[in-house]
Amino acid sequence: MTDQEKQGQDQLWGDGSGAGMHPTLALISDSLRQDLPLAEADLIASAAYARALSRCGVLSPQDGEVLARELESMLEDMREGDWVPKDAEDVHTAIEAEVTRRLPELGGRLHTGRSRNDQVGTAFRMTVRSKLDDIVDAMLELMEVIVEKAVEELDTLMPAYTHLQRAQPIRLAHWLMGYFWPIERDVERLLQARSRISVLPLGSGAVSGHPFALDREWLRRELKFDAISENSLDAVGDRDFAIEFVFACSLTCLHLSRLAEELVVWSSTEFGYVKWRNDLATGSSLMPNKKNPDLAELIRGRASQPVGDLIALLMLIKGLPSSYQRDLQEDKQPVWRSAFWTRSNLNAMAEAFRGIRFNGVKMEAALTDDTLATELADILVDRGHPFRDAYRVVSKIAAKAREIDGSLRAAADAMSADDLAPLNHQDFEGLTAEGAIERRKVTGGTARATIEAQIEDAREVLRFYREERE
Amino acid sequence: MTDQEKQGQDQLWGDGSGAGMHPTLALISDSLRQDLPLAEADLIASAAYARALSRCGVLSPQDGEVLARELESMLEDMREGDWVPKDAEDVHTAIEAEVTRRLPELGGRLHTGRSRNDQVGTAFRMTVRSKLDDIVDAMLELMEVIVEKAVEELDTLMPAYTHLQRAQPIRLAHWLMGYFWPIERDVERLLQARSRISVLPLGSGAVSGHPFALDREWLRRELKFDAISENSLDAVGDRDFAIEFVFACSLTCLHLSRLAEELVVWSSTEFGYVKWRNDLATGSSLMPNKKNPDLAELIRGRASQPVGDLIALLMLIKGLPSSYQRDLQEDKQPVWRSAFWTRSNLNAMAEAFRGIRFNGVKMEAALTDDTLATELADILVDRGHPFRDAYRVVSKIAAKAREIDGSLRAAADAMSADDLAPLNHQDFEGLTAEGAIERRKVTGGTARATIEAQIEDAREVLRFYREERE
Amino acid sequence: MTDQEKQGQDQLWGDGSGAGMHPTLALISDSLRQDLPLAEADLIASAAYARALSRCGVLSPQDGEVLARELESMLEDMREGDWVPKDAEDVHTAIEAEVTRRLPELGGRLHTGRSRNDQVGTAFRMTVRSKLDDIVDAMLELMEVIVEKAVEELDTLMPAYTHLQRAQPIRLAHWLMGYFWPIERDVERLLQARSRISVLPLGSGAVSGHPFALDREWLRRELKFDAISENSLDAVGDRDFAIEFVFACSLTCLHLSRLAEELVVWSSTEFGYVKWRNDLATGSSLMPNKKNPDLAELIRGRASQPVGDLIALLMLIKGLPSSYQRDLQEDKQPVWRSAFWTRSNLNAMAEAFRGIRFNGVKMEAALTDDTLATELADILVDRGHPFRDAYRVVSKIAAKAREIDGSLRAAADAMSADDLAPLNHQDFEGLTAEGAIERRKVTGGTARATIEAQIEDAREVLRFYREERE
Amino acid sequence: MTDQEKQGQDQLWGDGSGAGMHPTLALISDSLRQDLPLAEADLIASAAYARALSRCGVLSPQDGEVLARELESMLEDMREGDWVPKDAEDVHTAIEAEVTRRLPELGGRLHTGRSRNDQVGTAFRMTVRSKLDDIVDAMLELMEVIVEKAVEELDTLMPAYTHLQRAQPIRLAHWLMGYFWPIERDVERLLQARSRISVLPLGSGAVSGHPFALDREWLRRELKFDAISENSLDAVGDRDFAIEFVFACSLTCLHLSRLAEELVVWSSTEFGYVKWRNDLATGSSLMPNKKNPDLAELIRGRASQPVGDLIALLMLIKGLPSSYQRDLQEDKQPVWRSAFWTRSNLNAMAEAFRGIRFNGVKMEAALTDDTLATELADILVDRGHPFRDAYRVVSKIAAKAREIDGSLRAAADAMSADDLAPLNHQDFEGLTAEGAIERRKVTGGTARATIEAQIEDAREVLRFYREERE
Repeated sequence: MTDQEKQGQDQLWGDGSGAGMHPTLALISDSLRQDLPLAEADLIASAAYARALSRCGVLSPQDGEVLARELESMLEDMREGDWVPKDAEDVHTAIEAEVTRRLPELGGRLHTGRSRNDQVGTAFRMTVRSKLDDIVDAMLELMEVIVEKAVEELDTLMPAYTHLQRAQPIRLAHWLMGYFWPIERDVERLLQARSRISVLPLGSGAVSGHPFALDREWLRRELKFDAISENSLDAVGDRDFAIEFVFACSLTCLHLSRLAEELVVWSSTEFGYVKWRNDLATGSSLMPNKKNPDLAELIRGRASQPVGDLIALLMLIKGLPSSYQRDLQEDKQPVWRSAFWTRSNLNAMAEAFRGIRFNGVKMEAALTDDTLATELADILVDRGHPFRDAYRVVSKIAAKAREIDGSLRAAADAMSADDLAPLNHQDFEGLTAEGAIERRKVTGGTARATIEAQIEDAREVLRFYREERE
Repeated sequence: MTDQEKQGQDQLWGDGSGAGMHPTLALISDSLRQDLPLAEADLIASAAYARALSRCGVLSPQDGEVLARELESMLEDMREGDWVPKDAEDVHTAIEAEVTRRLPELGGRLHTGRSRNDQVGTAFRMTVRSKLDDIVDAMLELMEVIVEKAVEELDTLMPAYTHLQRAQPIRLAHWLMGYFWPIERDVERLLQARSRISVLPLGSGAVSGHPFALDREWLRRELKFDAISENSLDAVGDRDFAIEFVFACSLTCLHLSRLAEELVVWSSTEFGYVKWRNDLATGSSLMPNKKNPDLAELIRGRASQPVGDLIALLMLIKGLPSSYQRDLQEDKQPVWRSAFWTRSNLNAMAEAFRGIRFNGVKMEAALTDDTLATELADILVDRGHPFRDAYRVVSKIAAKAREIDGSLRAAADAMSADDLAPLNHQDFEGLTAEGAIERRKVTGGTARATIEAQIEDAREVLRFYREERE
Repeated sequence: MTDQEKQGQDQLWGDGSGAGMHPTLALISDSLRQDLPLAEADLIASAAYARALSRCGVLSPQDGEVLARELESMLEDMREGDWVPKDAEDVHTAIEAEVTRRLPELGGRLHTGRSRNDQVGTAFRMTVRSKLDDIVDAMLELMEVIVEKAVEELDTLMPAYTHLQRAQPIRLAHWLMGYFWPIERDVERLLQARSRISVLPLGSGAVSGHPFALDREWLRRELKFDAISENSLDAVGDRDFAIEFVFACSLTCLHLSRLAEELVVWSSTEFGYVKWRNDLATGSSLMPNKKNPDLAELIRGRASQPVGDLIALLMLIKGLPSSYQRDLQEDKQPVWRSAFWTRSNLNAMAEAFRGIRFNGVKMEAALTDDTLATELADILVDRGHPFRDAYRVVSKIAAKAREIDGSLRAAADAMSADDLAPLNHQDFEGLTAEGAIERRKVTGGTARATIEAQIEDAREVLRFYREERE
Repeated sequence: MTDQEKQGQDQLWGDGSGAGMHPTLALISDSLRQDLPLAEADLIASAAYARALSRCGVLSPQDGEVLARELESMLEDMREGDWVPKDAEDVHTAIEAEVTRRLPELGGRLHTGRSRNDQVGTAFRMTVRSKLDDIVDAMLELMEVIVEKAVEELDTLMPAYTHLQRAQPIRLAHWLMGYFWPIERDVERLLQARSRISVLPLGSGAVSGHPFALDREWLRRELKFDAISENSLDAVGDRDFAIEFVFACSLTCLHLSRLAEELVVWSSTEFGYVKWRNDLATGSSLMPNKKNPDLAELIRGRASQPVGDLIALLMLIKGLPSSYQRDLQEDKQPVWRSAFWTRSNLNAMAEAFRGIRFNGVKMEAALTDDTLATELADILVDRGHPFRDAYRVVSKIAAKAREIDGSLRAAADAMSADDLAPLNHQDFEGLTAEGAIERRKVTGGTARATIEAQIEDAREVLRFYREERE
């Protein structure tokens, strides 16, 4: 849009004298492009509002219906691509202008008792709610993929890492399920946030309430909100719902960044645990040898923008008086971006799980016997030794092993029976990764049956959410 | 602690060869001071753990009880100031060292099957949970003060502001209640977060689960957790609960910053709406005339640190592999700070409401008749004019009023009947702020009865939370 | 772009087997749109690179020139709108594909020794540098407007505020110049950052350097860089320049947010210090009476996104290994947004200063005599009293004044000579705002001559930067 | 301090009626503890100010000297531990109270013409400046350690990684120097920021300037500032210097986080490139086998808090009017924390470099021949083939190598001469990592001589900064 055009664009205010905005103000004030995702919700809410106006006598029943249907037909036109909101300072103005063009007399009645303040709040909440629902679906899909993969990899053994050092043997399925539960918390958090998003502000007017006998409860049901706002000042100035949504998105993206980091490390030649399907990896413009895990890197990197957008929103409301201030216009883009990236990151991660193969042979080869050191100490505990003493005994063997760059077994072999005591050389024979794994069968542990129970709980969770969302 | 001392301090690891940490590592690794708030919870959880170890046969019933009681007596000593965790790299090591000093044989058995990873997670969650409860109490107190104040100020009229410009008449009680609901959302959000905080990680070991038949369900009940963790890798690497808590604190502090900003603006001589009790205001070291609203300014300023701490935590986990990484040690200070400031800000704001007086005379004087412009348009709507036409008619009068720096009435007086049409001079006579206010009686509006209903809903909310928390 | 199309798009890698990217990867990997601002710089740098390749014998002199000219003619086509980079995963690929379409044999030689890693770094730095220059110009323009305004308002007196309470009398010109110096620091900071932006990475290859005898010094001069990078790993993985640029933008936007806040407060009816030209203010869709300072509110609100984008960038590089990682692709959008908003905020603020009128009458009316309390204490200091004693004497009078809601003079009148001592009633007669102002004539103070000197220094600064930039 | 005590504490304001602050305000207002690092600078600046007051006639020359010497003796007492600022709302008040206790008559004269606003600004800037100097020293030390290490490792070859995939052969020294230059930029940035920190606000009074003929230029020289502030409103409300300092700290910590990440990955058994000296690694409380790179993890994690503190400061000033607002009190802690962590991270990293050993054998073993793929393509370029064609030829061989899980040589062996053309089997014979490395001898490249030149440049830089700082 040129400056010239901006000046000529529709406004819902002004005394009709034709005086427009200075190009500088128009440039900075224009929000049409960032408002576009609101158009659907605004048309739906406007249609409901038209009917509500006729229910409280501001419009005749017939007029209300005609107006509502015209708005619905504009919605259809927009979906078909036959009409696009344009030539206005924002999408709400464009819609009012178009309906007034189509129905000159009735269009001018639509904004009765309504302000852009409560109108924007309504459309914004509906749109965020819908994006939230899409994200929850993408989460459930990823959770299902993780469960499937865990079932497949139940018998693959590997070292668990802490500090990126080999720690203790686990099943790969256990590691996989370790990423199921954070996403499960994310679903719960989002759905709880949803109930605070789904609060209807329409009927709050500009700041002090609605001057006619609007049936807000009817509007609530019509627009599928869970509740109506209790206070008009709060209703027009509240952006908590957007902030909370972006926070939830940020945390999800950070969860994915952790998983992505592990996939990147595991894709290195040195680890060699993960192999990417060709169509999920990329090459280099210069080095013909490269097959890079860009998908994981991008997911890792794309955790940053939602956090930035969270800050942008938190800072936006800092020190703002209650009720509406124009600063709040800057609330849309951070939300759209966060929603898009969160969803595409979730989808991408689900596809990643479909497209990678884990190298169980390499994983088992990494189960060197230092990962059984705790097991050795536990044997001594079984025999009645205090754990702290047992720990010190094994520590000496582990230090010896590091000294000779060898295994615990090799270290033991190099030590006398006295040095080993109260352990003895036979103790090392029964040591196996599987044994250490199967010992950990309390809930949360890595034993086969425990993981099967964990997977069953996960499926139960998925069933619950699937049913709830139907 | 000197470097020398740091090197000599207790560690739960090492092969007993006496090799300590380099002073540089000791300095950066030491977390004793930032861990201190965990000491109570760690002692309570350790006592329960000792009993749980005897329940699963690792300790004899008697040994378990002796160990548990010693830990409980250490708790008492600490509360009395007779013992302080010290000379160790962290509070957990100090506690194990002390109990081992007191009970040399049994102390060395306490850490069986337990790692600092699940131990810290447990104590941290218990401590955050307790701080959360204190904050919820402070929120409920502030909400009650707001409701009381709203009852007092039901008949004080004032202009509502949008863009800091006078907009429409409201009751001061309406403005006050506009700050009740954000805090109410904050309570709801915190309590939902609480259920994700109150998940027991103890029994996860270092990373792969517990090697003995620990009854985690018994531990859960004993330590009043709502659930137990399902996956040991997730359990030791999850800091979502801390992040979510700090996010909730940040949003609350931002809500208070908005209120604080309004109090600062209203305390200016120019507005003159708010007067501070002497003991809540401060002076200047140089200017004898000053009486500054520092309390409000500090609350406004103190919204910033929790947001900073939120970022610190979000960034901390970015790109970390699952399970425990040492980076996670940096998770405590941001939480302690956010908890302290959120609570003290809430307390301070409650005290502020007790200590300020609103100047109703000045507020009503500010109800100049331009705030009734919407009312004029609504009159035309009542007569069947489309709102958009009505708006334009009143806009011309408002423009005239601005031109002559006068009221709408003065502008109307300066205009001919033709210019005014379809309004007429008599329309201006019936215009009152009270009339405009009482017209807005739909839920969320500023009419007297509507606010009374709003206050009743608020009281119901308070009763609900008060009961739930007993 | 549809998924189908994405899969068919050009890539600079792959073995030619035609296997493309999975749509999910293509969606998340595609950066064409966010790369578009790089197109100009990439074409210019590619042309220079073609010539550099011929200078080191990789291309014949003639081939290098033909290739360079074709790239320059593509630049012209693009500027004319005759060609747009498209159908590729990024803008660099689109450009190589197009030049290869135009010159099949030569196009395939352009990427010799060059990687997208050093190529992107080069184009990115050139583009940031150019945006930085635009912003500096916008800063200098705003600084000039402030100086002009200060000259106009040299004789307008007003109270300075601290804590938003009237403090001491100053000249409006002094307040205005208080915003000149922060912007001056911003210019200095940006120009220093510029020297770190203007470092040429081209010639670093993918990560280990350039395999042919490329004359990087010649390239540097050709592309107007200040220096060449010293280390290829650093060169391809460094994004400090982008972060530093966005930081500088953030701080500038925050400076403008402070000014914007004051303009919003001063635009309230209660202060009444600022009046907006009609084409710089906006109305309400519902309330015909409103004339809102949206321009200032938008500038205030628009400080938040650059800070969010700064965080996004800082978080992006956290914990990334050195050299290139694909996460770095997410570095462009935060920069484009910050640059655009910083520049448009600066332009908008300059226009605001042109379009507002200060109400000197209201300002002087606000110079109530409590703002002269420090002056009274200074009189006692002149007479040899310790300041702290003088302060206490005047404090009592100020407390009295607050008690009777009156002026210092009124309070003095209500006090006996004994109560006033060591002051006396005559001391109040000579008190004037102008007197207090003219007393403050040390550098930095508000006396007329001091401000004139300040303005002269400011002009000197402007002259310096204007000359330097020519 | 108890609430009771807080109420009784010294204040520089109040009418002497004894009315104190409400405990709630006292709690939130008290800044003594966070101010303590300012005490030294405040005493030094106060002594200079006392002398300046006598130079402009407010004090007699003798009185000025007595007052200054008493302040200097307080400084000595404090350094000796004989006196500690206490029992006051802030450190400045504690100092004025103590000097007044020591010199009752003169102490009350010290605050003449000075406000805490310009006083705090002065002490804060002096303290930040001193912490900055310490950090620069720590940077130079780290840079020196890197250079030393690079000299040692000049002949160690390894693969450079991009996307954590082996890319091309480099010298380890080249990787090491890749971390020299980011720190070098950090030094430059900090020293440029220093010139904006070192601007004297003293003499600005509360907000409008100094009422006596204070010689600010003399004060500037006395306190070693580079310039004096030009505008008193800006001087008392400016916190840019603190923000800029914390930004520079953040970026440095992020640089160290990148290095730390690589050290963590390289410390894994799978990479095995880095071995830690025993006193720089830590163990596990449960697993006797662990030797963890905690030092690196802590440095990585400790990049987060400075970024959080940066946000806290940026948010603090958002939307604040110019001049002093009490919010600004919250500016100290983020600065102290950032300074401490930046310095200790730098020291820790320097110690890390002294305490790790690189495993050159493992590194060279990782130089599998896929890292020579670009070299193969470059051979074809040497023979006149367009690079893009050469790339495709080698891509096919690389794909074959991946298919048979083998080397490029093995793939070539499995291919016919026709398939290989225009390459031939002999081309593979001359391929060596050293050859590829030595080919990259343009500035920034990894050839031996090029790195030696790079190291020489680095030493020159170090010499320059060392000299400048003397």
